[in-house]
Amino acid sequence: MRIVVTNCNTTQEMTAEIVRGARAAAGPGTTVTGLTPAWGPESAEGWLDSYLSAAAVLDTLRTYDGPPYDAVVMAGFGEHGREGVRELVDVPVVDITEAAAHLACLLGRRYGVVTTLERSCGQIEDSLELAGVGRNCAAVVGTGLGVLHLGDPHRTEAAFLAAAEHAREAGAEVLVLGCAGMTGLQQVVSEKLGVPVVDGVGAAVKLAEALVGMGLRTSRAGSFAKPVPKRRDWRPPAE
Amino acid sequence: MRIVVTNCNTTQEMTAEIVRGARAAAGPGTTVTGLTPAWGPESAEGWLDSYLSAAAVLDTLRTYDGPPYDAVVMAGFGEHGREGVRELVDVPVVDITEAAAHLACLLGRRYGVVTTLERSCGQIEDSLELAGVGRNCAAVVGTGLGVLHLGDPHRTEAAFLAAAEHAREAGAEVLVLGCAGMTGLQQVVSEKLGVPVVDGVGAAVKLAEALVGMGLRTSRAGSFAKPVPKRRDWRPPAE
Amino acid sequence: MRIVVTNCNTTQEMTAEIVRGARAAAGPGTTVTGLTPAWGPESAEGWLDSYLSAAAVLDTLRTYDGPPYDAVVMAGFGEHGREGVRELVDVPVVDITEAAAHLACLLGRRYGVVTTLERSCGQIEDSLELAGVGRNCAAVVGTGLGVLHLGDPHRTEAAFLAAAEHAREAGAEVLVLGCAGMTGLQQVVSEKLGVPVVDGVGAAVKLAEALVGMGLRTSRAGSFAKPVPKRRDWRPPAE
Amino acid sequence: MRIVVTNCNTTQEMTAEIVRGARAAAGPGTTVTGLTPAWGPESAEGWLDSYLSAAAVLDTLRTYDGPPYDAVVMAGFGEHGREGVRELVDVPVVDITEAAAHLACLLGRRYGVVTTLERSCGQIEDSLELAGVGRNCAAVVGTGLGVLHLGDPHRTEAAFLAAAEHAREAGAEVLVLGCAGMTGLQQVVSEKLGVPVVDGVGAAVKLAEALVGMGLRTSRAGSFAKPVPKRRDWRPPAE
Amino acid sequence: MRIVVTNCNTTQEMTAEIVRGARAAAGPGTTVTGLTPAWGPESAEGWLDSYLSAAAVLDTLRTYDGPPYDAVVMAGFGEHGREGVRELVDVPVVDITEAAAHLACLLGRRYGVVTTLERSCGQIEDSLELAGVGRNCAAVVGTGLGVLHLGDPHRTEAAFLAAAEHAREAGAEVLVLGCAGMTGLQQVVSEKLGVPVVDGVGAAVKLAEALVGMGLRTSRAGSFAKPVPKRRDWRPPAE
Amino acid sequence: MRIVVTNCNTTQEMTAEIVRGARAAAGPGTTVTGLTPAWGPESAEGWLDSYLSAAAVLDTLRTYDGPPYDAVVMAGFGEHGREGVRELVDVPVVDITEAAAHLACLLGRRYGVVTTLERSCGQIEDSLELAGVGRNCAAVVGTGLGVLHLGDPHRTEAAFLAAAEHAREAGAEVLVLGCAGMTGLQQVVSEKLGVPVVDGVGAAVKLAEALVGMGLRTSRAGSFAKPVPKRRDWRPPAE
Repeated sequence: MRIVVTNCNTTQEMTAEIVRGARAAAGPGTTVTGLTPAWGPESAEGWLDSYLSAAAVLDTLRTYDGPPYDAVVMAGFGEHGREGVRELVDVPVVDITEAAAHLACLLGRRYGVVTTLERSCGQIEDSLELAGVGRNCAAVVGTGLGVLHLGDPHRTEAAFLAAAEHAREAGAEVLVLGCAGMTGLQQVVSEKLGVPVVDGVGAAVKLAEALVGMGLRTSRAGSFAKPVPKRRDWRPPAE
Repeated sequence: MRIVVTNCNTTQEMTAEIVRGARAAAGPGTTVTGLTPAWGPESAEGWLDSYLSAAAVLDTLRTYDGPPYDAVVMAGFGEHGREGVRELVDVPVVDITEAAAHLACLLGRRYGVVTTLERSCGQIEDSLELAGVGRNCAAVVGTGLGVLHLGDPHRTEAAFLAAAEHAREAGAEVLVLGCAGMTGLQQVVSEKLGVPVVDGVGAAVKLAEALVGMGLRTSRAGSFAKPVPKRRDWRPPAE
Repeated sequence: MRIVVTNCNTTQEMTAEIVRGARAAAGPGTTVTGLTPAWGPESAEGWLDSYLSAAAVLDTLRTYDGPPYDAVVMAGFGEHGREGVRELVDVPVVDITEAAAHLACLLGRRYGVVTTLERSCGQIEDSLELAGVGRNCAAVVGTGLGVLHLGDPHRTEAAFLAAAEHAREAGAEVLVLGCAGMTGLQQVVSEKLGVPVVDGVGAAVKLAEALVGMGLRTSRAGSFAKPVPKRRDWRPPAE
Repeated sequence: MRIVVTNCNTTQEMTAEIVRGARAAAGPGTTVTGLTPAWGPESAEGWLDSYLSAAAVLDTLRTYDGPPYDAVVMAGFGEHGREGVRELVDVPVVDITEAAAHLACLLGRRYGVVTTLERSCGQIEDSLELAGVGRNCAAVVGTGLGVLHLGDPHRTEAAFLAAAEHAREAGAEVLVLGCAGMTGLQQVVSEKLGVPVVDGVGAAVKLAEALVGMGLRTSRAGSFAKPVPKRRDWRPPAE
Repeated sequence: MRIVVTNCNTTQEMTAEIVRGARAAAGPGTTVTGLTPAWGPESAEGWLDSYLSAAAVLDTLRTYDGPPYDAVVMAGFGEHGREGVRELVDVPVVDITEAAAHLACLLGRRYGVVTTLERSCGQIEDSLELAGVGRNCAAVVGTGLGVLHLGDPHRTEAAFLAAAEHAREAGAEVLVLGCAGMTGLQQVVSEKLGVPVVDGVGAAVKLAEALVGMGLRTSRAGSFAKPVPKRRDWRPPAE
Repeated sequence: MRIVVTNCNTTQEMTAEIVRGARAAAGPGTTVTGLTPAWGPESAEGWLDSYLSAAAVLDTLRTYDGPPYDAVVMAGFGEHGREGVRELVDVPVVDITEAAAHLACLLGRRYGVVTTLERSCGQIEDSLELAGVGRNCAAVVGTGLGVLHLGDPHRTEAAFLAAAEHAREAGAEVLVLGCAGMTGLQQVVSEKLGVPVVDGVGAAVKLAEALVGMGLRTSRAGSFAKPVPKRRDWRPPAE
């Protein structure tokens, strides 16, 4: 099966990294294709970025003309857009935020999320709440590192471990990597912390494979019906 | 004071109608300017439209070069974007969804919302919940009428009254017009139903005036800090 | 328009101070009249005081024979009585507790309240919850100062700033003055804390003006119907 | 032990009826004394009545000069005041609303309340919620009968059975008599409905006996500390 | 009346201690019979123990052939089984977890639980939540002492007092002994802490007496209907 | 990988059916082994059965001496035991109740469950709530058919469709088969209803594969630590 993974920002290197993480999790028969939006923010941090990203990701999928795919994985932790993509495409859609939380719920009584900037914590809390998996979230904690400053693995790891401590004190028994750019970190921090650590990209790939394997698709009854046909301008008129 | 009212869609007639409603509610010293996004959906119905609308409204405010303003009213019932606008501008921002709910809470123990299509109900519920005013909402009920089919006032009124009945049965003691395009209907349906009916456009204008009058602005501490400076492309590169 | 502001206690100086705060917030066409109950506690701290106050305020409004008024503002932070007043009078009623919270919700993702004695915190939490605006309240924190010990502005300010720190740590991005007697403090603590600070008295005046301006009144359908005619004795029979 | 039972209204006949119900439930060593407020509403229906009643009941206990007692039972279903009485007296205080709910929780997974006027339903819901026992309440349903119209037992029984049906459909497995004036009805309606029916007056007597028997008293730490000494006027100055 | 008290484990000494506590709380006409399961864990700590205990307690009651009894008290703090026993027997069933919480709610605005091992805290939280009394629980705190290490009263008391401090800081105004093996400790720790401390065994006895005294039994309508007749094997076939 | 699927009851035919369903969902490299408890109820309906089942399933896994396995799937919809199994074994554990809900959350904004007897609905609601996925559950509806009466596929299908209608009216956009014995029904009812229908057995197999594939195991930090070593008797002493 073919899974399209959408990056939430325009940074090609991050798409490459996400695709690497997705492929590491994917089953033998799964092909992963990364999509980088042609517009949007270079990284998504905060609501303004998130809404810009949501529209750009929708536009990217709307205008996609590659080979058909079986599922969409949306790689933007805490970012908006999943419900819109569910309306747009006919295949299952899994957002890495909810995916990580769904698996984390199976591994402990409470989970915690460690993310980048503190300003993103509230957005992630909202995303988990609306996805229906907020109840068992003990804490969402920031590391103070921006998305584009995750490059130094040692600094990132140290910051993650420090923030994880706060999540643990708040009752988290399982941790979640709260940024697609952290993908790959799960092994080492899990060992150091002695608790399972869930990577959302891998989790979303696995859940997408599960849905496709079971022949399940987004419900068209109610919220996620096909968009009503109408005029939509996806960019300003050319001057 | 000057209040900018952003329409959530590209339909100029609806902007005009919203501005009329806003002016009817505005105090003597208030000037209302309507902004129609240069791109986006012609009406917002569902999440795809809503995310497209959010980006277009942000872009509209970002590129606005008219006279300075003191507050933003966002006229899109249940539509996304308010948190992003709070990051972007330095003046108070009031979304008509939350505005209507805030005032409705003061008028009865439970309120209900009557909106357009059934598919929008969940989106409105989410918007109210995150705004912190979902607790006293008894029901969000659809009329089955699309945003662009509100033109016939008799049909709209009849549909509103029928849907309002369901909200009343669910415990609503106050009703809210669940679409900016319904502005103006409040008087007649309130009389027929015998309960107060709150128009979100008017409510948001009043709340914006209140915040400006008290010298209050969005907090920059935490969630709604200024956007991090970075590269953001608001449209695809020209081919 | 004329707004009647009811003090929750019998201390005339506090009524005067509240009226000053109310007038500072009121629009040009608004007249503010302060009402001091002829009986009740000299300050309201705790539930016993609050229930005594509620009855006394109701009695004050019931026996009021001054010029007609357009709205009631109830100045008792966290004090009981608002639903009873909504039954009693035909004009909009706004309690400063809920008013401050409604505006605070528009200014940040989470707000906090700083009040007088720790014993009042629970009562305020209950009041916010029932008003439908408890969800986004991060914390209610006491300063340890009694209502009648707010006279020394330096001590009050220092105590407020210290308590505000706890609210900020709990996630509050906006603060609320949790006592009518703190009115006037908002400017200076807002500057020192770097976050917006909402005064409930001003907020309630603004919301009352908004409701009156929109022609909205309390719903008579359901909870806040007119009191059933019956015998009520508002004081013991004279011996 | 001696239990004082306070009626929430001034109607002596109702006090007598409540005392009969209380005595029927009381253990062999328990003496029940009924207290009728010297002022207040002749029946409590709605918030205005409830706040007036709360102050009158507090005044009644404050000025009580009979023999010492070991506990207070407050007989006003859904009426305010219990927290104030907890501050005032040094003995355990049990409100019949919460008492009925506490026992009902032990008898089924969800309970329902059948009360008098529909306007009282919201007040009862709030009372249960704040008492900490709202979660398992499936419904509060009105019979349409005023407190002073419960005199005809056949009509009351028929109205109760009809309303109980609605509570059962909402999931209630246990029912609660939602008015002190219904005391005595539990036997017959329980048999007809085939579910347990809890009378709040009896429940409160039993819980008061339990607390006294275990030597437990209201906590003075935090919310229900003794009232702060200060000037309190319980009625207007004599002219 | 006769109350059967079931221990959740096979340790006879603990049954004896529980029975002592139950008798101390029981009214003059109440006989207390302790039942020790013939199988199960020697102490219940964690979910595996709890489910084993639940089946063993059910088996114990199912095969009980002593004199008839009027109520069952289940002495296992936070342990599973109460709903099953409600299905099985025709008399009222009270679990000490819920019982302590019900009484604690009457004594303060928020209560806290101090239990044995930290691992049990989540199980207790779940038990309180499902019993419908979780809302006013401020905290469940572990002492780090295993059930079978409560023998040294000084160590237990010291550990309780230390853990109680955490519960108090979280807002608890009343404390609950979170283990049947702590029965008897309530007096001394209550005095040292200056807050009421509720013992679940005593509380459950009192609530059982209340229900029996009022002629109330578990509802058979809905959740707790009699078990469907069918084949059930309570142990493996003999080899 | 090898997945052990535990039936919650002693009926071998049902184990066979569950294994068929599990194998249909399993990936190419997955071996499914069914385990039928040697004791317990012949079907689990209600809490008594559920607790008996939980102990029997734990005993079955505790004494299992077959080839090693990589994950446990617990096939008992709404039945107890999952947390105990998480303590017991070192591999991931997925309960079909939570599994179905996790996938359902990805397919629509609200889901509903259609189960066997009405008496099981509350137990399922509790199970979903504690698993952290109760928020988006719109309704749990019974068909009135006992577990052992699902044999007639036409009757079962008709009953499912009728009950599904109620769930749809309550807002469910996705449905869940609320009994392991319904496995296989999903295809036909999904087509007739026009909404996705999730089978818990398949869902749990997929989630177990996902967890194993990602190298994730249950957290040992906190709730699900290894059982404390102690004496445990899994059956009565032989006479």
